[in-house]
Parts: sequence; C-alpha cells; structure tokens
Amino acid sequence: MSDKKLRIGILGASGYTGADLIRLLVAHPNAEIVLMTGERKAGLPIESVYPHLGGYGLPDMISINDIEWPAVDLDVVFCALPHATSQQVINGLMHSVQHSLLEELVAEGQDDLANQINTEVKIIDLSADFRLRDTETYAKWYGHEHQAPALQPQAVYGLPEIYREQIETAKLVACPGCYPTAALLALIPPLRAGVISHKDIIIDAKSGVSGAGRSLKESNLYVEVAEAMHPYGLGHHRHMPEIEQELSVASGADTVISFTPHLVPMNRGELETIYVKLNNGQTVQSLRSTLEQTYANSPFVRVLEEGIAPATRMVRGSNHCVLNVFQDRQSDRAIIVAAIDNLVKGSSGQAIQNMNLMFGLPETTGLLQAPMFP
Amino acid sequence: MSDKKLRIGILGASGYTGADLIRLLVAHPNAEIVLMTGERKAGLPIESVYPHLGGYGLPDMISINDIEWPAVDLDVVFCALPHATSQQVINGLMHSVQHSLLEELVAEGQDDLANQINTEVKIIDLSADFRLRDTETYAKWYGHEHQAPALQPQAVYGLPEIYREQIETAKLVACPGCYPTAALLALIPPLRAGVISHKDIIIDAKSGVSGAGRSLKESNLYVEVAEAMHPYGLGHHRHMPEIEQELSVASGADTVISFTPHLVPMNRGELETIYVKLNNGQTVQSLRSTLEQTYANSPFVRVLEEGIAPATRMVRGSNHCVLNVFQDRQSDRAIIVAAIDNLVKGSSGQAIQNMNLMFGLPETTGLLQAPMFP
Amino acid sequence: MSDKKLRIGILGASGYTGADLIRLLVAHPNAEIVLMTGERKAGLPIESVYPHLGGYGLPDMISINDIEWPAVDLDVVFCALPHATSQQVINGLMHSVQHSLLEELVAEGQDDLANQINTEVKIIDLSADFRLRDTETYAKWYGHEHQAPALQPQAVYGLPEIYREQIETAKLVACPGCYPTAALLALIPPLRAGVISHKDIIIDAKSGVSGAGRSLKESNLYVEVAEAMHPYGLGHHRHMPEIEQELSVASGADTVISFTPHLVPMNRGELETIYVKLNNGQTVQSLRSTLEQTYANSPFVRVLEEGIAPATRMVRGSNHCVLNVFQDRQSDRAIIVAAIDNLVKGSSGQAIQNMNLMFGLPETTGLLQAPMFP
Amino acid sequence: MSDKKLRIGILGASGYTGADLIRLLVAHPNAEIVLMTGERKAGLPIESVYPHLGGYGLPDMISINDIEWPAVDLDVVFCALPHATSQQVINGLMHSVQHSLLEELVAEGQDDLANQINTEVKIIDLSADFRLRDTETYAKWYGHEHQAPALQPQAVYGLPEIYREQIETAKLVACPGCYPTAALLALIPPLRAGVISHKDIIIDAKSGVSGAGRSLKESNLYVEVAEAMHPYGLGHHRHMPEIEQELSVASGADTVISFTPHLVPMNRGELETIYVKLNNGQTVQSLRSTLEQTYANSPFVRVLEEGIAPATRMVRGSNHCVLNVFQDRQSDRAIIVAAIDNLVKGSSGQAIQNMNLMFGLPETTGLLQAPMFP
Repeated sequence: MSDKKLRIGILGASGYTGADLIRLLVAHPNAEIVLMTGERKAGLPIESVYPHLGGYGLPDMISINDIEWPAVDLDVVFCALPHATSQQVINGLMHSVQHSLLEELVAEGQDDLANQINTEVKIIDLSADFRLRDTETYAKWYGHEHQAPALQPQAVYGLPEIYREQIETAKLVACPGCYPTAALLALIPPLRAGVISHKDIIIDAKSGVSGAGRSLKESNLYVEVAEAMHPYGLGHHRHMPEIEQELSVASGADTVISFTPHLVPMNRGELETIYVKLNNGQTVQSLRSTLEQTYANSPFVRVLEEGIAPATRMVRGSNHCVLNVFQDRQSDRAIIVAAIDNLVKGSSGQAIQNMNLMFGLPETTGLLQAPMFP
Repeated sequence: MSDKKLRIGILGASGYTGADLIRLLVAHPNAEIVLMTGERKAGLPIESVYPHLGGYGLPDMISINDIEWPAVDLDVVFCALPHATSQQVINGLMHSVQHSLLEELVAEGQDDLANQINTEVKIIDLSADFRLRDTETYAKWYGHEHQAPALQPQAVYGLPEIYREQIETAKLVACPGCYPTAALLALIPPLRAGVISHKDIIIDAKSGVSGAGRSLKESNLYVEVAEAMHPYGLGHHRHMPEIEQELSVASGADTVISFTPHLVPMNRGELETIYVKLNNGQTVQSLRSTLEQTYANSPFVRVLEEGIAPATRMVRGSNHCVLNVFQDRQSDRAIIVAAIDNLVKGSSGQAIQNMNLMFGLPETTGLLQAPMFP
Repeated sequence: MSDKKLRIGILGASGYTGADLIRLLVAHPNAEIVLMTGERKAGLPIESVYPHLGGYGLPDMISINDIEWPAVDLDVVFCALPHATSQQVINGLMHSVQHSLLEELVAEGQDDLANQINTEVKIIDLSADFRLRDTETYAKWYGHEHQAPALQPQAVYGLPEIYREQIETAKLVACPGCYPTAALLALIPPLRAGVISHKDIIIDAKSGVSGAGRSLKESNLYVEVAEAMHPYGLGHHRHMPEIEQELSVASGADTVISFTPHLVPMNRGELETIYVKLNNGQTVQSLRSTLEQTYANSPFVRVLEEGIAPATRMVRGSNHCVLNVFQDRQSDRAIIVAAIDNLVKGSSGQAIQNMNLMFGLPETTGLLQAPMFP
Repeated sequence: MSDKKLRIGILGASGYTGADLIRLLVAHPNAEIVLMTGERKAGLPIESVYPHLGGYGLPDMISINDIEWPAVDLDVVFCALPHATSQQVINGLMHSVQHSLLEELVAEGQDDLANQINTEVKIIDLSADFRLRDTETYAKWYGHEHQAPALQPQAVYGLPEIYREQIETAKLVACPGCYPTAALLALIPPLRAGVISHKDIIIDAKSGVSGAGRSLKESNLYVEVAEAMHPYGLGHHRHMPEIEQELSVASGADTVISFTPHLVPMNRGELETIYVKLNNGQTVQSLRSTLEQTYANSPFVRVLEEGIAPATRMVRGSNHCVLNVFQDRQSDRAIIVAAIDNLVKGSSGQAIQNMNLMFGLPETTGLLQAPMFP
C-alpha cells in the first residue's frame, strides 16, 4: 500500500481547519488532494484564500453542488463544513448521490463502469454533527433535529488512542472536538482504571483563537483578543455533552463535569488543567502509571517527566499531546495537565490519523513533523 | 489636606512595580516623588531605565545606603524591593536609622531640628515580607527565617476593601500579592456570609508576564512566552499560604485551597476562574447578592451584569476589579470569575489606594483613570 | 476658566477613536461628556459596547437624528464618524440645524431663549473629511465629490505644534491622520529650515491594528495579524496627499513622497522611519538642532538623547511623540525616527489638545498621564 | 543516493537556530543526526533544553571537546556557534583535528582504519565568520582579527539561488545572514540586469524576535517586546557589509546601502521593504520580469501575482521567499518587498538546502513542508 496515493476530497477547504488539512496532506506520502470545495470561493484557486498554499498544484475550489460524482472517484472525503450542514451533505453523500448514480449506470447497462466506481468512499467528519450518539442530546444542545439519525449509529468516535480498532473498519468517523480530545486523553484511562472519581471533575480549558474559526465576529478581532483573556460559554459550552458522553462510558456512571473554556491571545494551542479527586488508595503515582501504560504504544501521546509542566509550545503545529500529573495541595486531589495543538491533534491532524487507520497505513504516516518552536 | 503634597520615596524603582508606581504617582494630585533608589542604577536618571518616564522632573536614582535620613523628610515610603531584602530594609528604616539620627540631634541639643523631623514615615511594602502573620509559615515557604519578627504584628494586610479601617491607622502596610488580591475579593465575602463551603475551593489563575518581573530568565523571553501558555508552580506557589491565611480568617476554619497559576502571553492582566461549592440552600443568586452588597461602597470593585464574563481588557491599566458569578453544570457548584490588572490593583495601584487611606485622602485620589482599551 | 466644564458631544462614540476620547475625557478636569451618538447602538449604555467604560456615569448613546438641538447646548463636538459622513453631518451642524432652530425661536419671539443658546458650538473632526484644502484632491483620492466645499476654507489643520495660533481661533478643526501626524512633526521643521531636501523623502511607516478600526474585516482578525506583518496600500494610501499638502507648504515646493505603511501585531503604536537627503552643508547635528529648537516649547514632542532609538512603548497610551535622528551609511542621508500612539497623539489625544487650545485652556490639560509600560 | 542517510553533526544545538535545524532534519529522508554539542548542556538530552524535541531518539548533547574524531565519522557538520568561535572550531576541524588523527593512525600502521575515515567532512557554517571575503572588512566590523584567514578563500557564500554551482562542490559553505538573504534575493537580479541603480538603495527591514537568539538580554524579554516596536543598529548593523559585498559584485560597482532593521513582536518572520531607483527606460514591469525569469527554476522563491503584498505569514516555518514589486509614487522609484522566515530560509532551512546541493540531493529534499498558517 505504501506507494498508493489516496484520492482525497476536502469539503469546506477555506476555513482554518481546511487550511491545516491541506498543510498536512501535501506532505503526506500517500495522499493526493483531488477535490476541494468552498461555496463562496468556488472557481478560485486556494491561494486566493490562503496565499501560503500557492505553488502546491492544488485543484481550484468548486461548489459542493458541482462535484461530479462518481467520476471524481474519491477514496476519502474530509468534511470540514459548518455544523448541521455536515449532516445533510454526508447523508446525501453516503446514501443518495453515489448510489443513485450507480443505479443509473447499471440501468444503462454500463456495468463495467459501475464496477470501477468506488462506492465505498469513506467519510471523516470534522464537525460536531456525528459526535453525539444520542440524537436527542444533539437536538437539545444544537437547537435543531438531527438531519441524519439513521446514519448516526454508523459513526465511530474518532479518538484513535481510545477507539483504534473501531476506526480501522469505520466508514464514517466523527472526529472529536478540540476540547474533548485533550480532556478525554487525560481522563478516560484513570476513569476506566478506577483511579479517580467520576464526580467533581473540573476542566479549566484555554484555547488559542484559531479555534473560533475565520468568521467575522468582533470578538475575534486582533484588538479585542491581544493582550487580554477571558472565559466564555460558562456553564453551557457545546463540548460539554461530548465530553460527558465519553467519560460516562469510561467510568460506567453518569458523569457530569464542570468545564470552562478561555480565549487566550495565541493562534494555536490548547491547554487543559483538570482537577480530579483520587479514589481511595490511589495516588498521583498510580495516576501517572495508568496514563503511561495506556499510552505506551500510542506514538502521539507523551507523558512528560515528573515535574515538567505541559506547555502548548511543546506541541505547536504537531499531532502530539503532552500530559503530566501533579499532586494538589488538597491531599485527595490531583491535577492533570494536557496540551495539544487545537488545529492538529484537536482537528486536522487527528482526522488524518484516522484516515491512516481507516486505510491500513501506519498511524503516524505524514504526521511525524516536529513541533515548531520557536 | 487636598493641596498638600505627600513627600514620597520609592525603594526599588527600577522594576516593573516601581515603573507603575511612578506612572500613577506623577498623575496623583497629592504626591511628590522626592526619592527613588535603584542599586544597580544608582546615579542614573529614571529615563536610563524607563525612557517612557523621561520629562517628569523625577529625581535620579540613588543607592539605599546613600539616603540622607532624616533630611529627606519623607511622609511615606513604597518598598518595591525583592523578598527578604524588604524585611531588613524596613526594619532598619522603622527602628534604627531614623530614631538613632533623632537621638543624635537631641543629644546635640538641636531639639528644634529634631522636632521638625518626621519620625512617623509610613511604610507601604509591596513585597511578600510582611504578608504572612505567622513567621513560621513565612520561614517554611520562603526558606529562611523572618528578618523582622518583632515588626510583623504591626503590619496590616493591605487589602482595602476588607481591612479599610485598620489600614487608615497603620504605620506599616503589607500589600497583598496579585493572585491573592483577586482571589480574596472573590472569596472572602461569600465565605464570611456562609454562602459557599471552605472546602473544595479551586482557583485556576492566569497572569500576564509582567508579574514575573524584569529579571533575566529564559522563561521570560518573548520567544518562550509568545503564542504559548503553560501552568507553573503546580502545588507549591508562594501565594498559597497567603490566600489560605485570609480565607481561614473569613471562613473561621482552616482552609486549604487548590491553586494553579498559568503564564499567558500578555503584558498585564490577571484572571482567576474560581470553582466553589454552594452551601445548602444557597444559590448563584445569593452569591451574587453577597458580592454586590459587600462592594456597594467600594469604588474599585464592580460586579458585572448577569452573563457578562469578566475579561482582563476591562481593567487594563486601572485599579478596578471586575467580578461575576455563574452557575456551574454541576448543580451544587458555582464559578466566580475575577479580573484585575496585576500591576495596578494587584500591586502599585492598590499600594496607592492604601496610601490614600493612611493619609486621610479620598480612597480614589489619583486612581480614577479609565482602563486602556484598546 | 479652570473650573468650568465644557459640555461635550461625541458623534460616533462606538469606534476605537471614540473609546479613547472617552478614556481621556473622563479624566479631563474641564470636560463633561453630555452626549454620545452611535447609530447601531442607539439607546444602549456605553458599557454594552465597551464594558471597560462602565461606571463613569456616561449618557446612553443615541442616534444623531435624535439629538435635541439646541437644547443640548454643547460647547464642542468631537466628530468621530466615518469618512464622507462627517462632511454631511458637520455641514448640517454648522449651517442648518442650529441656525434654523435659532431662527424658529426668534420667529416665535423667544429671544431670551435664543440668546441663551450657544450658536458657536465648535467642531473637532477626527475624520479625513476636512484635511485636504483642495476639494479636487479630495474628490480624486476619496472617490466622490466633497460634500461641504463651502466649509472647507474655514477648517484649520489641527496639528498644534505647527498651527497653534490658527487653532486657537478656529471653529472647525480637522485633526490630522495618524500617519501624517508623525511624518509632519518629523519633517516640517527641517524642510522649513532648508536642512533637508524636499526630494527623495521616503517614509516607511508601521502601525498597530487599532488604526484599522473596529470593522469586521478578515484582515483584522487576530489569527491573520498575530505573529505576522505585511505592508499595505503600496503606492496609493490616502494619507499620502495629506502629507504632501503640508510638506509642500513647509518646503515651498511641490513635494512628492514615497510612503509605505505596514501592519504590525500590536494594538497601539505607530513608528515611522524616514529616510531624507541632507542639503549641502547640513549635518545630522544641524537636523537635530532644528528639531530641538522647534519643539523646545512643545510639551508633547521630545527629541531623545543621541543614540536612543524611539520605540512605540515609550509613548503607549500617551499624547507624546518621541523623535530622534541618525546618520545614514549613505553619507548624504539621515534617518529620522518618530513614534506616537496612533490613538492618542495620532487621534483622540491630539483632538483634545486642539480642544484645549480652542478654549483657552493650557495645552496639556488632561493629557499629562505617563505612557503605560509595561 | 536516495536511501543513504548522511551522518550529521550539529555544533551548538541549544540555540534557536539549532532547534530549527533539528526540527527540519528529523523530517529529512536522507539525514541522521548522530552528534550534537552544547557546552553548557553537555551530558543532557535535548529535551532538557527543548522539550518539544523529545521522543525523536536524538543523541545527548556533548561538549565540543569530547567529540571523538574521527570515529564519529560525520559526512557534514552544521556549525551554529557564536561568531568568532566558529572560525576557531572550523579551522581546527578542517585542518588539525581530523588530519592529525589521521596521521596518528597512519603512523600507527592502521591504514585500514585510516582509509575508512571520512576526511572530507563538509562544513556548513551558520555564523557570520566566513561570509565576508575580505578579512580586513571582517576585522573592522567584528572588532577582532579573523581567526582563520587561510580558510576564508575556500568558503562559498551559501545563497543557493545565486551560487548554486559553487555550492555543489564546496567543502565549506558560509550561510548568509537572515537580513542579507531577503535583500540579496530581491536586489541581485535587477542589479545584474541593470534594471535598477546601485545608488540610493534603501532597505527597511523588520524581523521577529527569534533572530536575536536565546540570550538573556533585557531587550528580549516578553514585556519589552510585546505590543511595541522599534528600530535598532541604526547606521551600523553588521549585516551591512555582507549585503554590500554581494550587491557590489552584482552591480559591478561599489555599492553602499541604507539599511535599518526593526524588532517586531513576533517569533519568526522577516520582511524587507526595499526602495530602489529604476534605471532609464526601466519599469516596474521589467523589474518584475527580471525577478520572475531569474527564479523560474528556483523552487523556494516565488514572485507573487501583481498587487499581492508579501506577508510573513505566507512563509512561516517554511523555506520559501515571497517577492513582489510595486510602483512608487515617486515615478522613478519602485518598491520591492521580500518576506522570509528568518529561522528557515534565513538560517536553518537554507543551510539544509545547501547540504542537499553539496551532496547531490534534490535541492528541495526535506524542505517542502507548507508554511504554517494560522
């Protein structure tokens, strides 16, 4: 497989997530981007949106409506569309468009051509649309009915370190949110192992501004963000139910968290400081061991040496997650700190990690570049 | 009193705290800086250290050893020296230097001159040296014996909103640390009122870089700090015992906190996200009311309207503290958020606020400039 | 006059320029803001737009159309409206609105009331609308006809260090743009004195992001600006004709400049590095002397000591301009460097300096706060 | 050759240049780092200095004095040592150390071993020590005698786009400074072609802070740099003679430039705005054509489409240089703008580009990662 180039489509290439997908995929030895969509930029080259991506021979952006299914013959589609739109597009993609075209070909007697068509295009969704298993929870937090409830059961939650096997055979992967990625990598192992309590978990999260996307909001302006910081979404951020869903699975109990994100004046990077209660007989050292053992064979997760505080600069631009644990001054408590790059391990990099698994490639293919510091 | 100019000395003028004291005092209608010390910069004008402070007619910096007591005839000394040094200098200042000179004058029969001398120079210390009432706690956290244990009982903890009356008559005020200032303004009122539990208090603090001072450490370099963030001092930061001391007084019980500071890429500003447990029958609304009532007559503390998240840009460069409270997703918990400028309300501004109280001036004199945003 | 409070109106209070006007005016001993307009925010308190300005007892914003002339009885109006709008509004304000109301009162026989009305409201315009003396030049650079050509001759160019006397008696002052302010303070004196050539002047300018205003453009987003820089408006920036107009007056010859602005990742601050040719017999030292002599009595312009490079942090938040001159490696050339805060000396502060002059107040009233560093 | 791994040593691995060499080399398919030195960090793993580089199986740092020549058997040494030190170390490396060891082996009759030793280790120097061809000029600008004058003639100036052929056969390459790299790429082609004058060239340069290295200077502290900017080295920066040396070659005339660098609050990135005079009959269009033609086969230099301003974010983290040209308002002038990443094309990336050429690898090997934006 190592020489084959996967034919890749990126739906929604003009956002920051799209940009980082492109950045990583042009360096991926088994990837070829053959299609990119951007509704407002249809017909334009990617350098009209991202001048830094000029010179890589990428296809011009087109409208989703102008995709020539099935001729484009994709192996995999990355869906970096806004929430809600993803459900509709993916539903169409998996159920209608391709199959109907296929039927047409069969009806026309073009069986040869039909056989050549890849009816098994795999979908990697970077939106929130397929993360919540319970479509009612989705409706409650996102304010509208789920648009593809029949598809939801097929979706695998794309956190490779936790669901590696399921991802390998998935047709539809729902990549985790950036905040959930760091939180779950830190919390699932000790919850599963009974090292920490599922109660009283407090996640204080800090994120760079690219997490807010390229949308034109006053709160994203340089002058509003630089030299300042503040919390947001207090008590009602949409990543809450996603984190709780997975922690409840890990702990085997209904788990309700406290989660507060903050906006920090930096482009990339996400840090979570997580306050947990140790179960009886457990210590910071057993917490550390649990994490080390869980991730011994996970190339992207690194538990730092004792005493070293994770910092976002340790993972900038890379698919790594660095973790460490500390004794709290309250003796029954510990602090877990996790740092990722929100656009890479928190989004585009993890999506490619999922792609690697889905196509039998080594998990690290195209993702081993070192973090960029300075 | 409104026309009198207090004669002011600043010991340790060359640090960031010194710079902000000067910035605020040159605009204070009752202040005249007549003496500034800087050991490594003795003999030089302040603009050699801080070009932005040129043109204000300030005296050159001298060495502490070259101060001509009592001729300089100070009303008040701001002590912005490093920890430990302050205890020695203040001890000398209050007990030996002046008084011995006074005795000399009396011995020499110069009673007239002796009577003119201000033997009551008041001291406002910005270091940590007199904050901890228990000198053993001091020795434990600072690694050496207290150098002026006899003075410690005279020191008043300089948090005006809490200790206004004691400050008015104090001769020695120990200004709170920046982290304690925000934490205590948020937590003392609800602890006193029994609205929240003194257990399970978690303070997640974020600070701009000026809090680390102007010292040449790799961790303070632009490249290390910009576009990045990380926690530090996990489980053992020196502001912990100070916060616990005051919270224990407020709650009437031995109070142990979880406190984790983070370094954020900004010059100024401090934000604390504080996770608390509501006592039985208490609500976020009662928590809000308690804060509002406590600070109704405190001009520098403002409880924001419901739903507005405090942000450091709301207080940049000013002596204000903005507070707000939020319902946590864990139903028995609330979140208190406090923002201050670490160099103003967290240091130099609060010191001047204390000076105003000590000399019978309106508390807000010279401190009403609006925050600087952008 | 020192106790009188001028009754002030701010048209367009919701932009960054408006915010900084408010910041400075609330600390001004002779100012009272009695009216603020904001079309999209009409009816709302200023803290809904700028939470940091809450607590100062400011009036709610209203629509320009809802101003109750002449009852509001203003002494002075600061006009911080978008370009083109200013011409219309000021025209209306100076010619129609007030006078027609006045006529009504007289017609109604209410002479007493008419006499009480201040028909001499003075206007300080912060837009570009009245800066260019030649209305054809205006039309060429701004793409539409001048809306108030009859008023243009009344407008005084509001650079106090150059036009102090004219400003003192002006009814309409057109405040310079931020780039022109720094460039003209650096270049007018040596051009007037014949120290430098009016040819081959190259101005390389760098500005913080607040200069672009609070408008929702992609290029103003944090992620686009942070950790990056770039030039813009190459060869055709609208501040060019304004600079050339004033330099031509100073040099007595038609002066064409090279001017290139750059966007720098900082909120405030403007630096101009200006490359000039020395006339025969002139030296860097004579250039320095010319600047020093010109500004000997200008409290806000400071020529730094030899060898000290002006930096934006030396003037942040203040109305100062720092200048210095350097020998170029090309022996007939010199370099002049100027730094200002684009929102203060480059906009709101200079506007208030003009107000002081127009009302006979000391030029520095309310403007002596020290720069904010850190 | 494509599978062979070059055995690489990095002298001075603990600076920012070293860090970026490592970042790029761990992703280079033909590179294996087998030796790294760091005097103050000898014996420590690289993650003790750069935690983000942990996990790549890199050798511990050692002292230069502890290198076991010739056993280490290097193909190439990157020398990222401070100025002056490089001359001594490289001199020793090329003339004494290896050869004397070789002689020892021969003397001992160990001819077999001697034959196995690579006596032809190639040197890529990233310091300024071998850039200036005239050792007297070196002495004048660097304040001390050149330490290896006999070696200087062997050194090839490592700007691949200009000296590609010479580099391919060089044993010692002196990599250009970051400022010269951008300036020369912009100016050499039009000077060679006679499109612009060699007189009146003005280079206004802006750099991120990493260019100043990791040294503990007050001027490199976050608080001094953030939200501020200023010029430095006015009239006497050490990159001047280097730029002039190469421009004089290109123009065939003694070329004296005006060059002023500025410090900008960003980690990486360098932008140069260059003001030039067009020769008679030349236009901005002929200037553009000259650049386009010169770099048609240079994969790392890209002339942008007309009207697009180069920005540092277009090249962040990559080995690219983006260029564009603009008509100045002074009709006989043009403006050339160049942007590079000072640590990549301005230092470590260009060094690797040189290595590729010296070893017959495709010039782009290991250097095609896309810029990182956001």
